Amino acid sequence: MVVTPQFMEFSEPLALQSGASIRAYTLAYETYGTLNADKSNAVLICHALNASHHVAGTYAGQDRSEGWWDTMIGPGKPVDTDRFFVIGVNNLGSCFGSTGPMHVNPDTGRIYGMDFPVVTVEDWVNAQARLLDALGIGTLAAVMGGSLGGMQALSWTLQYPRRVRHAVVVASAPNLNAENIAFNEVARRAIVTDPDFHGGHFYEHGTVPKRGLRIARMIGHITYLSDDVMNEKFGRNLRAPTLPASPDSPLAQGAGPVRGGPAPDLRDYLYSTQDVEFQIESYLRHQGDKFAEYFDANTYLLITRALDYFDPARPHGGNLTVALAPATAGFLLVSFTTDWRFSPRRSREIVKALLDNRRDVAYAEIDAPQGHDAFLLEDPRYLDVVRSYFNTTVAAA
Amino acid sequence: MVVTPQFMEFSEPLALQSGASIRAYTLAYETYGTLNADKSNAVLICHALNASHHVAGTYAGQDRSEGWWDTMIGPGKPVDTDRFFVIGVNNLGSCFGSTGPMHVNPDTGRIYGMDFPVVTVEDWVNAQARLLDALGIGTLAAVMGGSLGGMQALSWTLQYPRRVRHAVVVASAPNLNAENIAFNEVARRAIVTDPDFHGGHFYEHGTVPKRGLRIARMIGHITYLSDDVMNEKFGRNLRAPTLPASPDSPLAQGAGPVRGGPAPDLRDYLYSTQDVEFQIESYLRHQGDKFAEYFDANTYLLITRALDYFDPARPHGGNLTVALAPATAGFLLVSFTTDWRFSPRRSREIVKALLDNRRDVAYAEIDAPQGHDAFLLEDPRYLDVVRSYFNTTVAAA
Repeated sequence: MVVTPQFMEFSEPLALQSGASIRAYTLAYETYGTLNADKSNAVLICHALNASHHVAGTYAGQDRSEGWWDTMIGPGKPVDTDRFFVIGVNNLGSCFGSTGPMHVNPDTGRIYGMDFPVVTVEDWVNAQARLLDALGIGTLAAVMGGSLGGMQALSWTLQYPRRVRHAVVVASAPNLNAENIAFNEVARRAIVTDPDFHGGHFYEHGTVPKRGLRIARMIGHITYLSDDVMNEKFGRNLRAPTLPASPDSPLAQGAGPVRGGPAPDLRDYLYSTQDVEFQIESYLRHQGDKFAEYFDANTYLLITRALDYFDPARPHGGNLTVALAPATAGFLLVSFTTDWRFSPRRSREIVKALLDNRRDVAYAEIDAPQGHDAFLLEDPRYLDVVRSYFNTTVAAA
Repeated sequence: MVVTPQFMEFSEPLALQSGASIRAYTLAYETYGTLNADKSNAVLICHALNASHHVAGTYAGQDRSEGWWDTMIGPGKPVDTDRFFVIGVNNLGSCFGSTGPMHVNPDTGRIYGMDFPVVTVEDWVNAQARLLDALGIGTLAAVMGGSLGGMQALSWTLQYPRRVRHAVVVASAPNLNAENIAFNEVARRAIVTDPDFHGGHFYEHGTVPKRGLRIARMIGHITYLSDDVMNEKFGRNLRAPTLPASPDSPLAQGAGPVRGGPAPDLRDYLYSTQDVEFQIESYLRHQGDKFAEYFDANTYLLITRALDYFDPARPHGGNLTVALAPATAGFLLVSFTTDWRFSPRRSREIVKALLDNRRDVAYAEIDAPQGHDAFLLEDPRYLDVVRSYFNTTVAAA
């Protein structure tokens, strides 16, 4: 499936939940499959923290897909693009083509930076609804997302109940708990206190707050993985040294691994506070370095704040049952047993509130070892549940 | 109980596990109670990451104790200083009076900084043993510690089996798992990449890497608390604004809380990525700020690394049963159900390995809501278990 990113420009101001507004903006999006004649087969995919509109397929010239949900979406896949017209959209404030903090504020002629308005899940849904208007799509066969994307799917059913027939909410939650907010806050502080952040106007200084982004991403990765999978993948394994040992290192004295020497786990410790000793350290540093190369620091702040703020029950005194009363869609919820970021308990809260409202709800709790990351991985039980829901329930309506 | 810190100087070099050595050093310590005539009532208390030799009691002029285990140790307390002679000692490399990275290296005349040698749990135990030698104490009635302190207590029973009659190991583990190491590594990276760190020689630059220390402490605090206690204490509660609202803030427009206005939880969001919105953010920032004022950055690196490295089963191919065979002490192990940093499962591994060796082991798993922090808190069930162990088992021998 060869795909092409597209861009839609909006010249009407978008009023935001904060009271601010964005005068004009662009959304990057992609579509897969064909919209049918009565425009009834559209499926909107909402992305999570660091993902984009590039959900599936390959760009011209690529050998393999870099789409973040390519296991899920495509011809013959659980969300079958031979049958459904699938739309991926990059959210406002993100950094993959839609208008964001790295763009020029038309009101000032200056790059937005920290002045980009705070956007919420509800704002993203409103922007996505406008994209559907522009594409001539009234009602979605389904809206679907994992994690923060699941929050958007849930919010769709509340903001536009008549435009959504089904919602698929994966590894998500009705709001963040204190621990979730705490991790977001540490990540934000790491970015904001990086001297290269320059109050969010680092673009003008020709810098990137990479130190902060690295820390933010390392923290994120810890929370994406389960304790068990981390122990299984990395455990206490030492990293095999890749550089020649210095003459006064224990490695040079024959005590540790050299080519053909003992396995890394049997080598001596390096006894260093800064060198990479354990494989888990190497993994995290690598993830941090990669992330700092491509992700925008202001976007990280905005998106983690959108996560913090999402709380549909808040205007209803915390009563989720009352909050979800407007939803009329059919629902599939999926959670993963070892996900401690958005635990099954949080999905069950949504299930319960929907059942209180006598809504159609299917719920699958997948016994997966990988933690929150499981929602992006290829687990046949998980993919089969989604496939079945789309083939029978979504397609039937 | 009024107490006074004392200092013992050691002029014999201490050989370290890494192969390096420390030529001369000082240990800060305190004692509570009276050593009996046959010197059989000494109890050594080992401290965890950010604690010190000041375990209990008050310094002259203080109204209340700042001792980190004052609930546990003192006249009539679980470790009763009317009966036992209790010793608190600050570890080598720490920053509360014992020789550490902020002191001058006698070999170079320069402040150690990052050149302070890496010290391990085993090195600390060796240094503590020398302190006992200097105090004329051959055998400890008990060695006791929580968390990293518990690792030292366990190591005492392996390094000096004949000098320890009992070991009390609280909220500890036989080694760190991958997730523990991961959190340590993120904290270390935050410190090391702070421009004010200056390769660990910040003393000479008149700076302190406070940004990094703050992040490190915030991460630590998240892992010390259970998810449940965080939700109960902070939940999604918003912070009441303490500063006058700016004219263009929603607060100034009557939408939010002012004195006598609605409760903080009912105020509007501030819609800001940098201002403190939630109480949990305020709590973490405060903890980070406090810590950065008093804790040494190089000490943080050293102590987290000592945690990473501790793994008595490592020389035995990971077989903890074989590793613990040399221990002859009686053991009390205590864990807390909601401690996800050092979970009960890890304590049970130690219990199992000791039972494999037919050692005397008592084990209490306390159903406490506070997470890892519980080991420092006043829980009658926990304190009573320790009291009982000391009054009967330790005192009887």
